[in-house]
Amino acid sequence: MTAQVLVLLGSASDKPVFEKAKTVFDELGIKWEVHVASAHRTPQKVVKLVESSKADVFIGIAGLSAALPGVIAAHTTKPVIGVPVDSKLGGLDALLSAAQLPPGIPVASVGIDRGENAALLAAAMLALKEPELGEKLASYRKKMREKIEADDESAQKW
Amino acid sequence: MTAQVLVLLGSASDKPVFEKAKTVFDELGIKWEVHVASAHRTPQKVVKLVESSKADVFIGIAGLSAALPGVIAAHTTKPVIGVPVDSKLGGLDALLSAAQLPPGIPVASVGIDRGENAALLAAAMLALKEPELGEKLASYRKKMREKIEADDESAQKW
Amino acid sequence: MTAQVLVLLGSASDKPVFEKAKTVFDELGIKWEVHVASAHRTPQKVVKLVESSKADVFIGIAGLSAALPGVIAAHTTKPVIGVPVDSKLGGLDALLSAAQLPPGIPVASVGIDRGENAALLAAAMLALKEPELGEKLASYRKKMREKIEADDESAQKW
Amino acid sequence: MTAQVLVLLGSASDKPVFEKAKTVFDELGIKWEVHVASAHRTPQKVVKLVESSKADVFIGIAGLSAALPGVIAAHTTKPVIGVPVDSKLGGLDALLSAAQLPPGIPVASVGIDRGENAALLAAAMLALKEPELGEKLASYRKKMREKIEADDESAQKW
Amino acid sequence: MTAQVLVLLGSASDKPVFEKAKTVFDELGIKWEVHVASAHRTPQKVVKLVESSKADVFIGIAGLSAALPGVIAAHTTKPVIGVPVDSKLGGLDALLSAAQLPPGIPVASVGIDRGENAALLAAAMLALKEPELGEKLASYRKKMREKIEADDESAQKW
Amino acid sequence: MTAQVLVLLGSASDKPVFEKAKTVFDELGIKWEVHVASAHRTPQKVVKLVESSKADVFIGIAGLSAALPGVIAAHTTKPVIGVPVDSKLGGLDALLSAAQLPPGIPVASVGIDRGENAALLAAAMLALKEPELGEKLASYRKKMREKIEADDESAQKW
Amino acid sequence: MTAQVLVLLGSASDKPVFEKAKTVFDELGIKWEVHVASAHRTPQKVVKLVESSKADVFIGIAGLSAALPGVIAAHTTKPVIGVPVDSKLGGLDALLSAAQLPPGIPVASVGIDRGENAALLAAAMLALKEPELGEKLASYRKKMREKIEADDESAQKW
Amino acid sequence: MTAQVLVLLGSASDKPVFEKAKTVFDELGIKWEVHVASAHRTPQKVVKLVESSKADVFIGIAGLSAALPGVIAAHTTKPVIGVPVDSKLGGLDALLSAAQLPPGIPVASVGIDRGENAALLAAAMLALKEPELGEKLASYRKKMREKIEADDESAQKW
Repeated sequence: MTAQVLVLLGSASDKPVFEKAKTVFDELGIKWEVHVASAHRTPQKVVKLVESSKADVFIGIAGLSAALPGVIAAHTTKPVIGVPVDSKLGGLDALLSAAQLPPGIPVASVGIDRGENAALLAAAMLALKEPELGEKLASYRKKMREKIEADDESAQKW
Repeated sequence: MTAQVLVLLGSASDKPVFEKAKTVFDELGIKWEVHVASAHRTPQKVVKLVESSKADVFIGIAGLSAALPGVIAAHTTKPVIGVPVDSKLGGLDALLSAAQLPPGIPVASVGIDRGENAALLAAAMLALKEPELGEKLASYRKKMREKIEADDESAQKW
Repeated sequence: MTAQVLVLLGSASDKPVFEKAKTVFDELGIKWEVHVASAHRTPQKVVKLVESSKADVFIGIAGLSAALPGVIAAHTTKPVIGVPVDSKLGGLDALLSAAQLPPGIPVASVGIDRGENAALLAAAMLALKEPELGEKLASYRKKMREKIEADDESAQKW
Repeated sequence: MTAQVLVLLGSASDKPVFEKAKTVFDELGIKWEVHVASAHRTPQKVVKLVESSKADVFIGIAGLSAALPGVIAAHTTKPVIGVPVDSKLGGLDALLSAAQLPPGIPVASVGIDRGENAALLAAAMLALKEPELGEKLASYRKKMREKIEADDESAQKW
Repeated sequence: MTAQVLVLLGSASDKPVFEKAKTVFDELGIKWEVHVASAHRTPQKVVKLVESSKADVFIGIAGLSAALPGVIAAHTTKPVIGVPVDSKLGGLDALLSAAQLPPGIPVASVGIDRGENAALLAAAMLALKEPELGEKLASYRKKMREKIEADDESAQKW
Repeated sequence: MTAQVLVLLGSASDKPVFEKAKTVFDELGIKWEVHVASAHRTPQKVVKLVESSKADVFIGIAGLSAALPGVIAAHTTKPVIGVPVDSKLGGLDALLSAAQLPPGIPVASVGIDRGENAALLAAAMLALKEPELGEKLASYRKKMREKIEADDESAQKW
Repeated sequence: MTAQVLVLLGSASDKPVFEKAKTVFDELGIKWEVHVASAHRTPQKVVKLVESSKADVFIGIAGLSAALPGVIAAHTTKPVIGVPVDSKLGGLDALLSAAQLPPGIPVASVGIDRGENAALLAAAMLALKEPELGEKLASYRKKMREKIEADDESAQKW
Repeated sequence: MTAQVLVLLGSASDKPVFEKAKTVFDELGIKWEVHVASAHRTPQKVVKLVESSKADVFIGIAGLSAALPGVIAAHTTKPVIGVPVDSKLGGLDALLSAAQLPPGIPVASVGIDRGENAALLAAAMLALKEPELGEKLASYRKKMREKIEADDESAQKW
């Protein structure tokens, strides 16, 4: 079974953010592979994982000076999603590191600690060649809307 | 001719950022369509453009409270790229508005004023179903590397 | 009974900020209606609620990339109040999203998590055509002053 | 002729921001009165102007530690709009000073240097008791939409 | 007994910051008077307290849009010390509001939540005409140095 | 002639900020002495100047990591005023360095580039033992008010 | 036994950050000496410790307006490492104070609360003349990589 | 001739910051080598340059998401200096990216655009095994002090 999405975490401590992504992957039936691999502490491992991967989309989850998504993007022309993690400064350091890439090397940054959005964004990309995934995304949104409708119904008793 | 990428600008003043994207699109042979359409000033137009579009990828370019990419994402499950534009506060307001989306609605934010990266990210997504685009991206990177090698050669005379 | 103020919350988790507003509304006898409706997750619902409402004033309470008040303002020329909620970055992302609207679409932003001030601001607007509400606001301030006078009296024993 | 809106500027150097408001007032036929009056340098004058004014809406335009709108709000229960001006730090100091008011004293902050939005917000408030102003606001928006449509038409030649 | 320093708190919730000042005042034998008086909620009280005070130095302690020290300074030419309090955004809003005064109206801002430093700064000012206070300040510093020397001695066992 | 105020500049490039102070000193008849002396580059000189000075008030003007006012305060118990200078980051680095002193060592920080306010604050301190200076300050304020009144008169023609 | 690294803490409360450094020193066999000595509260002690030290590398650990590393650097031409400590504002004040030194006085700032990185950086410097330390650093990294490999193995069960 | 310091620039546009370093190197007689090599655009080149270099100290100069110094540090245990460059947001993005490294991989960050300080810090490190360089650094500081003394002399005529 080949993973469609390769997820790299800069540190095992980023696991809670990954788990938000995992929940989405499993709900949508997306095949994923995860590795703890740091752009700073195991750089060769990152390069090897990226270059040998058959995945269509890459996700880098990291805090502080979040170089991981940018380093992944440096070694592939496939789409790379960055998830900045709040470790210090409310995650502002990680957001700026993940988003402010130089011209030529794009990273798709989602919001701070937004693992689920990284997974949904990956799904949207994969759906470009796998139309049934687009239908699953539409269902996912429908459920989300229904959840908000239910919340709204509850709110009528506030 | 159907556009592969639909680009919306929140204001005609965002044109210079769009032009960076256009240069990349034209170099890579990607079919694009552009519209000035504001999430705040012409919201119905944004919705209509997004919902009627056959494009595979959407890009929203906007400054200040850059709601445009998030509003596009609210009306499609296709991938949406946000380009925050520096209008006030160095673009920090636009970056936070473009990146800090709520769970469930992903936007792929690139860096402040990074129109070229939005186009490259769109290309990476399109390449998932159009392999020759991946080759063009690889060539693009090769040229970029050669440019840096040339810069490095010049640097030997500094 | 027609609501004078329509309050929209981007998420049910914003309830504590809404409750500060509710306390003020009930004290001043202002008729309100509340809905959970997200600019990103249920955009059509937001538009429908706003366009069908007979309310005189609108309030949008939201965190992160707080597009809600701006999207409300995009669909009405009635006054719209934005309440940024602290979810990440101390609420700076929401404040900038709520306040930094483009020319032409005004949003009246109050401070982070300041639900009570949103309600008081709405009251001040409604008082323009309902003078007795102005008197109630004057009484409210008087009580507030008396509270501070009492605090000051306690302080004399510090 | 009684002014409907009283505009106070913390400094004569804030004139360019006021002029954006004036253009809107004159287009919508709103009667305004303007004074240079500083919360810090001429505090009594501010109090006297506010307390003696018959205006329905107040606007305070100020940079740096922009106390002016909050001080106006301290002396009236009428709606008060704050316009933070970029003088240092990109206007972040003024925005936080204008928006982060304590519970009980609401200020409606618009974006940095957004004089036109202050005027439009004042118009929306005045329209609560003057319905024809609401129609003028609708026309204003229509023109704005047409301007963006024209911009979009031009964009088709980019 | 006439107070040498008049301390105003924008809110009773600022008491912990005041208590740091009180400890210093009592240790140095400085006569103080404290009042809860808000620049926004009881502005006349602030003006009356300041204008009727015989104190030599004023201290304003406030959070959020901390207008209090600036408003005190607007009504006296005596030295005014501002103490920004952390209520939101880590106190950055209060620091900018307290420090970024316009030309002509100086406020002496100390650090966020630094009540003790406000008291020490007041003491340094009062010592200009009361030399024995300068000696007390020198003793205070000596004790502080001794405390650090003791800490350093403990550190030799780390 | 003994200087009443000793002004230290961290760099000759801070001269424009000093000149705002000088104008005030000369208008109020305050005797000043100025030195370029850096906390980082000529630390002994700073210590020597501070310890040998008979001045009643010290002012440190510096940009970047503005250690100068804090270092002055470390060597005197006289009041020390800090003037953060905008050199990078809009002066935010200098403001935080000047204001965020540890407990026990107070610095009176004024706003970014606010040399005139440093001089006025020094004057307010000196006036504690030199009452006629208080009268001069009152006159200074009166002129300032008249200037604003004149500005307001001009504004009636806007 | 002469210390190779002299570590100064601005306050005993910075001990937890120091302990991260101590663990590294002890693991690598680096001789260290620690003192609590404040740039603001015991400035002469700082100068005396620095000028009399035979250490090859200096580390200053401090929060708030973290002048300590810069003041150390002002008194030695040996390499000085700064460790900003999070005390207020998430440590942003300390980071800017530690990093934004003026031209001519370099400080090597590591990240907020990163005591271990300060020790590793000191080790890297000492290794320039003590090659076996370089080997220990290589071993340290190897262990770090093995730790991440083990984490990655665990991740395969997530 | 073997370079003692290897300087990498993320982009040829960082040249002005490099030139500040070069001036210091040439004045102190330090042998340097420079290359334009981007962590994102030519990652293999960075790795190859670092791993094959015999230099004792490395400097990475980069703007935006300044991954370069961290990536250099990931491939060597020699000391690595980071120079954040102001390209967007006043250089705050680059400073946070350069300084906020994870535990285990230290980077010595100097201030924004501070090329000269990077060179001086490298010199201080090299002086650990080359004592005459320490003397040159002492002379450099002496000249710097004399420059400030001369500035101070000029200031006596202000």
